Amino acid sequence: MFTAKWLNPSALLTDLYELTMSQVYVEREMLAPATFSLFVRKLPSNRSFLLAAGLWPLLEALHELRFNEEDLAYLESLKIFKPTFLDYLKNFRFTGEVWALPEGTVFFENEPVVEITAPLPEAQIVETLVINLINIETAIATKAALCVLAARGRPCVDFGARRTQGLEASLHAARASYIAGFSATSNVLAGKLFGIPVTGTMAHSYIESFDREEEAFRAFAENFPENAVFLVDTYDTLEGARRAARVALKLKERGLLVRGVRLDSGDVIELSRKVRRILDEAGLSEVKIFVSGGLDEKKIAEIVSSGAPVDAFGVGTKMGVSADAPYLDLAYKLVEYDGRPRMKLSEGKITYPGRKQVFRRYDAAGLFYEDELGLREENLPGKTLLTCFMREGRLLEGTPPISDIRQRAAEEINRLPVDIREGRRTPAPRTSEALLRLHRETVERLRERL
Amino acid sequence: MFTAKWLNPSALLTDLYELTMSQVYVEREMLAPATFSLFVRKLPSNRSFLLAAGLWPLLEALHELRFNEEDLAYLESLKIFKPTFLDYLKNFRFTGEVWALPEGTVFFENEPVVEITAPLPEAQIVETLVINLINIETAIATKAALCVLAARGRPCVDFGARRTQGLEASLHAARASYIAGFSATSNVLAGKLFGIPVTGTMAHSYIESFDREEEAFRAFAENFPENAVFLVDTYDTLEGARRAARVALKLKERGLLVRGVRLDSGDVIELSRKVRRILDEAGLSEVKIFVSGGLDEKKIAEIVSSGAPVDAFGVGTKMGVSADAPYLDLAYKLVEYDGRPRMKLSEGKITYPGRKQVFRRYDAAGLFYEDELGLREENLPGKTLLTCFMREGRLLEGTPPISDIRQRAAEEINRLPVDIREGRRTPAPRTSEALLRLHRETVERLRERL
Repeated sequence: MFTAKWLNPSALLTDLYELTMSQVYVEREMLAPATFSLFVRKLPSNRSFLLAAGLWPLLEALHELRFNEEDLAYLESLKIFKPTFLDYLKNFRFTGEVWALPEGTVFFENEPVVEITAPLPEAQIVETLVINLINIETAIATKAALCVLAARGRPCVDFGARRTQGLEASLHAARASYIAGFSATSNVLAGKLFGIPVTGTMAHSYIESFDREEEAFRAFAENFPENAVFLVDTYDTLEGARRAARVALKLKERGLLVRGVRLDSGDVIELSRKVRRILDEAGLSEVKIFVSGGLDEKKIAEIVSSGAPVDAFGVGTKMGVSADAPYLDLAYKLVEYDGRPRMKLSEGKITYPGRKQVFRRYDAAGLFYEDELGLREENLPGKTLLTCFMREGRLLEGTPPISDIRQRAAEEINRLPVDIREGRRTPAPRTSEALLRLHRETVERLRERL
Repeated sequence: MFTAKWLNPSALLTDLYELTMSQVYVEREMLAPATFSLFVRKLPSNRSFLLAAGLWPLLEALHELRFNEEDLAYLESLKIFKPTFLDYLKNFRFTGEVWALPEGTVFFENEPVVEITAPLPEAQIVETLVINLINIETAIATKAALCVLAARGRPCVDFGARRTQGLEASLHAARASYIAGFSATSNVLAGKLFGIPVTGTMAHSYIESFDREEEAFRAFAENFPENAVFLVDTYDTLEGARRAARVALKLKERGLLVRGVRLDSGDVIELSRKVRRILDEAGLSEVKIFVSGGLDEKKIAEIVSSGAPVDAFGVGTKMGVSADAPYLDLAYKLVEYDGRPRMKLSEGKITYPGRKQVFRRYDAAGLFYEDELGLREENLPGKTLLTCFMREGRLLEGTPPISDIRQRAAEEINRLPVDIREGRRTPAPRTSEALLRLHRETVERLRERL
């Protein structure tokens, strides 16, 4: 359980209308089970799949959710809530059921990532929390997965902490990118909380605070003989690389191996070739070249396809905020209440009513072939993706090791055909006959009433 | 002080290299004062000014920053740090000086938002925190300011909580958008923490959980007679508006005024005209029309310039993540150490060395005319923008009421000439002779050493 340590969610972190609507529900005893379905209506234009993440932070938050005395005093001070409702909130616990895609599952439009069934006010009050946590981690995990694919086996490291949207976001980014296949993070707290390997190099300020660059390298290597990566572009990249090589050679004589050098600016394709030559000519072929600075999957692909001798990537801001798709079109929609299917009748947008399941099929080679979106009670061919994680507010299993989730993500992405992996095809699920029928019937019932 | 309540920063939320570099500084007794300058190198292409925010959360975080026992045990477990350095961290306090632009100040490229002077390891360790908090709140405050300008006096309300990048980010977004001139937030916790007015309407799920739409409206109005805004687009917008009007009329007979109706989908320009007519013909000219759904400054400007009878805007995701510019090109650069100016010699990018001040000049009409970037000790004409907030780790004043910051932001934006406000001109500061000279001398000194 890491909830209390970093997420520390207050039940007050919700939209006011969740509480006003819930007062009406409580007043009118509308406490029957409601099912809300969280799904992405349409993938961002530059995504051909999504990688589910954020579920365990959400489950732990749901499990711990309470309104404390101070929260209740604040709500009372707003002078809009009835004492009976404030009493209801005082005893508020999430007692519902959560079905979800396990973290690390690949999914597509209209497929539920999470389905929550709970007494109507409970399912309503958690809306903000549910959307928020799945949104950020799924958006970032997907972006990070694209970077990992582009790097073609070269390690990617999360350098995002300084420019994520808030401090908590940096933890989500470290977690989500590790799930997606990143090798490590620079974020020390994320390392501690999630057991992710932590790593780092040195900053320009470090070099500048010494009178001589070579002295800066030497001092670092003396302190961290097994973890030295020299940043060589502070003054003159090639001169910096020669100095780094001199220090590395001295260390090698003492049996100590410098891990690498880092390039953070300039034409890194060209520079990496020249720096490689400098290192190789000095007999330092084992010293690796790290590249950072404004990287995303496009820049990484460009470097990799150029054949530049780059061994690893430090990926920061653009992954950490999923810069080209900083949010998902995630909707949390009521699909059933009190045993009856529910939906909105809007033009252009289809929301399917009812509790659902996703049935995934693979081809003979074991690659993803298609998904079918059906009703939960249907028994269609394929692997069922939605799993029950929580029942009556109780977690059915403990928090899995992050390495298991990371493993699942790797397998899921490996099973995608290459055209999806490379963004040339964006699948959408088939819709089962039963679901289409339920949709039709619900539309008719709602139209009659209009 | 709200730090402990929501931000709860751990000193471990830093990049590993801040700690490894700091061990070297501590080992070598490089504890002389270092000045780091935080500035935006280049504004995002669709921003002609930035609105500073995030300073008070940062100041409070700096003031509280500690490594606790658990943090130190984790660092020890990494087996890379020396006991002497872990001892240093055990007693770590931020004892430095902070100069900064007061929150709500308009600023431009290369102008320091924050300048920190502290013993080198302290100034280094806080880097991640400093960039992160100023980055998110400034990015969002600026985006929100554009929405407020576009709305031309109509209230904007923050609906961003569900899709900000994490829960903490939703608090930054509520705070930053209120500073920028938003009228309220839907985020209840933000209301409690920052004293921002909270507001809200109702969701489609609320309407759908009733058998009849009109009953849903009536139930809400009975519970919240002075705060009812009916969402009318769940099934059929115009029919919904007629039902809302019937309920509103019934309430009016009892002396209760419904605040408004909300449109969240469809062609809101066209629909708002038709809904206005329905309301007016029912004698409900006082009932307002709220619009939400995918709004940003462009969409708001389109609605406003169409003359559509829209009274207020609910602005969510695109403001809450600053969707078209989700991060700023913020750099935290060493500019002075141990009494000597420092800088990086990179191609294309200029970083000015030395502690700085920004001198702002206004024209005869009191409008912004130009900024000059100079050295802190210079005495140039103009209003000095950077102010000392912290000295020897002590805050020089208490957290100001957010209303004061919001007031300053409004005044600052009002003093911008219309071409800057409308994005047609992006000023850059002049550079003082003394600063140019210091830059030249530093370049020469560094080149000599190369």
